Amino acid sequence: MDSSQFRQAAHAAIDQIIDYYDNIRDRRVLSEVQPGYLRELIPPGIPQTGEKWEDIQRDIEAKIMPGLTHWQSPNFLAFFPANSSYPGILGDMYSGAFTCAAFNWQCSPAVTELETIVLDNVGRLVHLPEEFLSAGEGGGVIQGTASEAIAVVVVAARDRYLAQSKATWAAEGLSEDEIEEKVCTLRGKLVALGSDQAHSSTKKAAMIAGVRCETIETAMGEYKLTGEQLTAKIADLQARGLVPFYLTATLGTTPTCATDDFPSLSAALAAHHASTPLKIWTHIDAAYAGAALVLPEFAHLPATFAFADSFNFNMHKWLLTNFDCSCLYVRRRRDLTDALSITPAYLRNEYSDSGLVTDYRDWQIPLGRRFRSLKAWFVTRSYGADGLIAHVRKSMDCGKEFTKLVKGDAKRYTLVAEPAYALNVVRVNPPPELEIPVDSDGGKEFRKRSNEVTRKVAERINREGKIFITSTVLGKGDESVTAIRVVGGAPRVQVSDLQNAYRVISEAVDAVWAEEVAAETARAKEQVELQAV
Amino acid sequence: MDSSQFRQAAHAAIDQIIDYYDNIRDRRVLSEVQPGYLRELIPPGIPQTGEKWEDIQRDIEAKIMPGLTHWQSPNFLAFFPANSSYPGILGDMYSGAFTCAAFNWQCSPAVTELETIVLDNVGRLVHLPEEFLSAGEGGGVIQGTASEAIAVVVVAARDRYLAQSKATWAAEGLSEDEIEEKVCTLRGKLVALGSDQAHSSTKKAAMIAGVRCETIETAMGEYKLTGEQLTAKIADLQARGLVPFYLTATLGTTPTCATDDFPSLSAALAAHHASTPLKIWTHIDAAYAGAALVLPEFAHLPATFAFADSFNFNMHKWLLTNFDCSCLYVRRRRDLTDALSITPAYLRNEYSDSGLVTDYRDWQIPLGRRFRSLKAWFVTRSYGADGLIAHVRKSMDCGKEFTKLVKGDAKRYTLVAEPAYALNVVRVNPPPELEIPVDSDGGKEFRKRSNEVTRKVAERINREGKIFITSTVLGKGDESVTAIRVVGGAPRVQVSDLQNAYRVISEAVDAVWAEEVAAETARAKEQVELQAV
Repeated sequence: MDSSQFRQAAHAAIDQIIDYYDNIRDRRVLSEVQPGYLRELIPPGIPQTGEKWEDIQRDIEAKIMPGLTHWQSPNFLAFFPANSSYPGILGDMYSGAFTCAAFNWQCSPAVTELETIVLDNVGRLVHLPEEFLSAGEGGGVIQGTASEAIAVVVVAARDRYLAQSKATWAAEGLSEDEIEEKVCTLRGKLVALGSDQAHSSTKKAAMIAGVRCETIETAMGEYKLTGEQLTAKIADLQARGLVPFYLTATLGTTPTCATDDFPSLSAALAAHHASTPLKIWTHIDAAYAGAALVLPEFAHLPATFAFADSFNFNMHKWLLTNFDCSCLYVRRRRDLTDALSITPAYLRNEYSDSGLVTDYRDWQIPLGRRFRSLKAWFVTRSYGADGLIAHVRKSMDCGKEFTKLVKGDAKRYTLVAEPAYALNVVRVNPPPELEIPVDSDGGKEFRKRSNEVTRKVAERINREGKIFITSTVLGKGDESVTAIRVVGGAPRVQVSDLQNAYRVISEAVDAVWAEEVAAETARAKEQVELQAV
Repeated sequence: MDSSQFRQAAHAAIDQIIDYYDNIRDRRVLSEVQPGYLRELIPPGIPQTGEKWEDIQRDIEAKIMPGLTHWQSPNFLAFFPANSSYPGILGDMYSGAFTCAAFNWQCSPAVTELETIVLDNVGRLVHLPEEFLSAGEGGGVIQGTASEAIAVVVVAARDRYLAQSKATWAAEGLSEDEIEEKVCTLRGKLVALGSDQAHSSTKKAAMIAGVRCETIETAMGEYKLTGEQLTAKIADLQARGLVPFYLTATLGTTPTCATDDFPSLSAALAAHHASTPLKIWTHIDAAYAGAALVLPEFAHLPATFAFADSFNFNMHKWLLTNFDCSCLYVRRRRDLTDALSITPAYLRNEYSDSGLVTDYRDWQIPLGRRFRSLKAWFVTRSYGADGLIAHVRKSMDCGKEFTKLVKGDAKRYTLVAEPAYALNVVRVNPPPELEIPVDSDGGKEFRKRSNEVTRKVAERINREGKIFITSTVLGKGDESVTAIRVVGGAPRVQVSDLQNAYRVISEAVDAVWAEEVAAETARAKEQVELQAV
């Protein structure tokens, strides 16, 4: 593909992308292909001679599009959003054009320096405490995902805890051999912590780092971790000879967007740290909800997690920057580089050695990196603070409209958590015709029927494919509650889309209710006939 | 930015990218900015209201370009190449447009299915044994970088070794508590291995996984790991109570593109495994040189590493696919998912549960993933097998031309390793005028002077910035050799570029030699004058 062929191909690709976005509402949001669909459409192997772009491009609509779930559709109300935007796409075009491994400053100074500048800007935009910015001992870095960020901080937390332990033992006069022996034993006892609502990536990070992971149960209906629960867990671990070294606290949990009680967690950690030089690393996971910190009404929140060692949110979720752009901030960058830096001869240069430059490879797991700050720079400049605030505000308005609708429809729905950050989590009531009492049997039968109906409604909605939602299970065993999560954060989402979603869901509820009542009537009839025999 | 503004902006961006590529030879390949240059050019903060694309785009040439090192320039002869291409850029445009977190099959089936198909195709293109493809128990997955791939396999190797150990102890009738105690001790003794020429990412992977790492010394001038050396190292570790569980073997080392002796390594491992059910995981790191396996003359090589557990090469180095596209193949995909799978309720769906689909999140560290197979698909279809072969062949021809030139110039240069995969590693001889004997003093003085001259030549070349090369240090202490690495693999590189590089380097040699001789003459004169006093 020469330059003029590329110009033609790229123009055609841009037309296709624009058409895709302009008409995305008309596409079935959820793909309905069956596993293995693509193998049947694509001839095996690589062609011997090159193909024309027209032939390649034709396959995008014909073969790829049917297998896509359209995350940019306003009817995508599942998981959390994964925003893309035109300025973001432009950023990745240049990133591709300027391709370089960028593992140190010298590889392309602009890649490192723009990242530092952009992350400081974004940190201020979300009102982060100054400690997390680059002027002092902290700073920000772009990671691929929040889960990758958590893997990084768990490894750093583990190594910091081991280093602090070694220092303590050395001060006590232990020999190197004795210290090594004790480190070995300690590794086996280290425990990473998160609440039962924290994202599973903490568990995965612990698996990668080779340490244990335990969860702390939160209260049903609250779903937020408190200092009291943490203190109790620490005591429990200590009683079992185990050693907590890391905690994921969450701003906006995945199931319900609950926020842990940062002030009481801060106090609990301060009390714990009063008696030991061995510090538990606290990471604030705000992967999705962190974007809401651009709003003035949330500007006070970051001060409440100033005690944390690290903070992370994904611009690629709710802040109009196409995947991947996960912003990780640390209070002390040395904590990362102590755990992740190796500097072999062929990566050495006068700039790195001077300490004047940041080598982000020492802040992350991979060596090489893309020029990801370009897209974040384009997005923040192209939208401006006002544009980014307007986008998040619009989603919040969508969420509030949906809350209003379900609150006004107590016959069909019960909110199972306080709506937060544009997310509503609702369960569907059993059909009123069945007259299942809410409170008898401790609500067990009601919950069971509600869970069944909610699951059937969720499956029906996704089978229809007019909107895409996910369901979640809160609590355990008899107490567990199945609920539908509805969150509209796509770039083009409007309040009317959530009104439509309410209609689609309600139609599904009515259909499932009718089936349930019919089944119950048939069962009752059968019962009567059996008794008559 | 609305659709019509995007069309205009994207057309302007495409024109700029085409102009950048068409005239890249004219740009100074190595950036000459000083640390902190960008802070002075960019006003702090995010603008309150959005800016026009024209204003943003203007800053690319004015502010970003000066801080770029141009990896696509034919004058970029440093590190290893990091190819970009037009079809690759188109792939990332669509990947951005279709942005989705893609952490499981259902998120967008096309993302998963195309990756499996493309990696099978690419695996066949580089003549991988069938065991590494998806039809059996193995398969390929796109990772961000070779270092990330190595982190993944080290974690998987560690967990496989621990699982095999646990199974052995359970079979011996040990209790759960006893087994846990022994696992804890074993973790502290596990050692990941690589030769002294293996990439530093093995060391970093071991740091992340929380295990030891040791290197095995190779012979000077050979730089390849042999079975004999591995066997000796295993015996040494066992004598010290340590336990090897993982080995990085390399096809094309970073310093000299040496290739480990796979047949003898295979035999050594087979001998070791004959007496134990606990398997050492061997990973073949072919990050750069793997691309050369598209050439028919190397098609026999992959059969020699059929014994390995995993293999990795980067399409984003030498195969025209913009970063990131690192292809990792494993013999047994269960080894990865056993180590990396967690499946919480909100990530469950009927397709994942059925086992019919691949959820690549369980093959990697991060949860979310981009649609990276698109660019690999576009590149392989657009170039065809012939186009990819022609690209690698052209680089090989460049390398051979450079080899011919330095071999014909024994006055200036000595090749310090067998040229391989387009890489030449040369040291510069001391000025002939100084008449330093090559062999006296075991060659110590000659090496010392050669190293000094080589370092000065390398620094001078990169200061001039007509071409960009990296230097490397082989061996240790008195024996160490400083050498210049020259490898031309950029998409537009021609044999004439390497002829030019030879001229540029030779001019630098002559200039440094003249300085050295002048300094030596001045020193001698001073000596004479001092003696005269």
